[in-house]
Amino acid sequence: MVPVNKERVAELIGGLAKFGKGELGITRLAYTSTDKAAQMWLLKQIEYLNLEVREDVLGNLFLRRAGLDPTLPPVACGSHLDTVIHGGAYDGMCGVVGALEVVHMLEGETLRRGIEVIVFRAEESSRFGFATIGSKLITGKAAPEKFADAARPDDITFKEAVMEWGGNLEEYREAVLQPGSYKCFAEMHIEQGKVLEETKHQIGIVHNIAAPTRFKLHIKGMADHSGATPMGFRRDALVTAAKMILAVETAAIREKEHGTVGTVGIVDVDPGSINVVPGKVTLWVDVRGVEPDSIRRTLTEIRQAAQGTARADGVTIEEEMLTSDTPVALDARLAAQSEEICREQKKSFLHMNSGAGHDAMHMTAICPTTMLFVPCKGGISHNPAEFAENEDICAGIEVLAEILRREAQ
Amino acid sequence: MVPVNKERVAELIGGLAKFGKGELGITRLAYTSTDKAAQMWLLKQIEYLNLEVREDVLGNLFLRRAGLDPTLPPVACGSHLDTVIHGGAYDGMCGVVGALEVVHMLEGETLRRGIEVIVFRAEESSRFGFATIGSKLITGKAAPEKFADAARPDDITFKEAVMEWGGNLEEYREAVLQPGSYKCFAEMHIEQGKVLEETKHQIGIVHNIAAPTRFKLHIKGMADHSGATPMGFRRDALVTAAKMILAVETAAIREKEHGTVGTVGIVDVDPGSINVVPGKVTLWVDVRGVEPDSIRRTLTEIRQAAQGTARADGVTIEEEMLTSDTPVALDARLAAQSEEICREQKKSFLHMNSGAGHDAMHMTAICPTTMLFVPCKGGISHNPAEFAENEDICAGIEVLAEILRREAQ
Repeated sequence: MVPVNKERVAELIGGLAKFGKGELGITRLAYTSTDKAAQMWLLKQIEYLNLEVREDVLGNLFLRRAGLDPTLPPVACGSHLDTVIHGGAYDGMCGVVGALEVVHMLEGETLRRGIEVIVFRAEESSRFGFATIGSKLITGKAAPEKFADAARPDDITFKEAVMEWGGNLEEYREAVLQPGSYKCFAEMHIEQGKVLEETKHQIGIVHNIAAPTRFKLHIKGMADHSGATPMGFRRDALVTAAKMILAVETAAIREKEHGTVGTVGIVDVDPGSINVVPGKVTLWVDVRGVEPDSIRRTLTEIRQAAQGTARADGVTIEEEMLTSDTPVALDARLAAQSEEICREQKKSFLHMNSGAGHDAMHMTAICPTTMLFVPCKGGISHNPAEFAENEDICAGIEVLAEILRREAQ
Repeated sequence: MVPVNKERVAELIGGLAKFGKGELGITRLAYTSTDKAAQMWLLKQIEYLNLEVREDVLGNLFLRRAGLDPTLPPVACGSHLDTVIHGGAYDGMCGVVGALEVVHMLEGETLRRGIEVIVFRAEESSRFGFATIGSKLITGKAAPEKFADAARPDDITFKEAVMEWGGNLEEYREAVLQPGSYKCFAEMHIEQGKVLEETKHQIGIVHNIAAPTRFKLHIKGMADHSGATPMGFRRDALVTAAKMILAVETAAIREKEHGTVGTVGIVDVDPGSINVVPGKVTLWVDVRGVEPDSIRRTLTEIRQAAQGTARADGVTIEEEMLTSDTPVALDARLAAQSEEICREQKKSFLHMNSGAGHDAMHMTAICPTTMLFVPCKGGISHNPAEFAENEDICAGIEVLAEILRREAQ
């Protein structure tokens, strides 16, 4: 196997980081022209690999190196190129660049199976409010009706975005992959937490992925003049919203030992005017964990708080469920093999769970799937300060290459 | 005096309501093309009054009927045509339509002084974050540097809006009126509270206007991945913001007896993504009252809460003051005269204060000023449900006409 080329890895990650870079970080939302430009640039850089390029009707990209026996399902690896608003250069990109570097490292190897690098579209939920849309659709985990009309205010819908990209949501069935389409799938990713850094391990071998439960709380009070409405006469939806933000926090803290977390990331205030008592507020809530019971308890506590607060404040609170995924177990055999590889390569490793969702969790529906984490500075991600050492990324790539070499034989 | 023409009053208010009408109410922000269209339409309707039309460089409109003695300062009355986002058809419009109806009612009267109807621009703060901009500037209560660059995200600045309207902020000094420019100013307005309705009075005679203190609280925590950041490791700016929303509420409730109110009307969350722990939040706070000491106590309590919460949550909170006006006393002689007129016309009246700010409060700087309130349904305003009975509006116009007749003699 050719050794990992650290310079090229750094160049590709650094080059991608230029697309969408602003003063407050990298903003490269899925399906935007920035997303397209980044992908075009990347394809140009790896032309020398002579991969077979295919894009499905949803805009997912597949880059294939053929194997000796074209009748065998290939091994797959990959990740995503889109970022959150004001995000970083590593979340997603490490896995895509790492997968491409693996293809290069295995160029001289004679392998029975092909290797396919997948770039999933719309992993981040920042543009449409739903995460991992591309992988969810191609693995048959969801139908597009759910997302078709999703849009942030003043933006086009998911359906329109797919169209603008050059795809067609109506024909999404063409893109759905059958179980067994791949021998296996492996995704390398930054940890997005500080466990590897603080415990000084090079590689995280992921066993479970916490899946998000996401819902909106629609709070309806009464809009009134902020100067002429005495305090006792108000039904201020934002005051109720504030109590619910704290209720989400409290409910999650109570389940801290079980690793469950709860976050309100978006607040829509209507009318959102300094001289009007807010009449309506929508909170977007995200609850995650690896233990289904703990997630359930957290949701129950939030719902009870919503009922009690609505009654006390004389407002209504309606819940609108967006996604409710169950935690996903990854493949045990592949995890054991990763441990073996780490021992052989003399890399320190840790068995762990993923708090964040990843495309890999949907790939479990069609093939044995594994994930590797590499450390990132301060556990920070979804933030311009997101950073991973090139040395650590390349150590992950070495393990990833060996996984795919063994599986492709 | 010609009797008030109730049909025409209803037609003018109903006609104006069509400009900016949407499913969620009337949105006619200051200086927009909708604002312009409404004013053009209104001018067309009242052509028969043959008023001298003048617009200053800020877009304030002056419609004058000459008096017998052109050397005497005229009497003035008026209000505004702009609305909040998703507002109603009466706040502002009653006073403009009422003033024009007064000119009609006094057409046959021989009066020494002229009558001037003023349509102030940008009374609502919905577009630029500052209220009563037009009246503030022409009375010399503020210089335009304060507002020039004010803009909501994705909108043009105040300076650009004045330019688009056809004015020129650079030449604002031309628009400033000298003290003594008018004999007096009278503004009729819906109460925007429920006191008149609940106590069954036709006319509110206003003595003091509560002025708003408005400021932003900039809360800075740390943006992090919402799935991979354990609860104990977060510095969630939105959780702190929720505590501050409740602190504003609590501080105002403590001053309830003194009529002070406190409202958070706008919440800006950065990055505002469902999968990111909010790193920065800005709250827009509005505190009002008629007692300076009570306002001071409320602000002190909010500031102490901000300090304590920032320390406890490990975040920073910075205050940015936007406006800090002092409550304004209106003219006592004019109020006494209004009481006399109400008694003569056999109208029930109540002496009261205004919780909301009005253009009238700045007019006190250049001439004796008075205000009349008419009841509005449920005290609701800044809301599509805003409603005032035509009967009540016309009763107010009758008092207004008599005030101006006496003052113009």
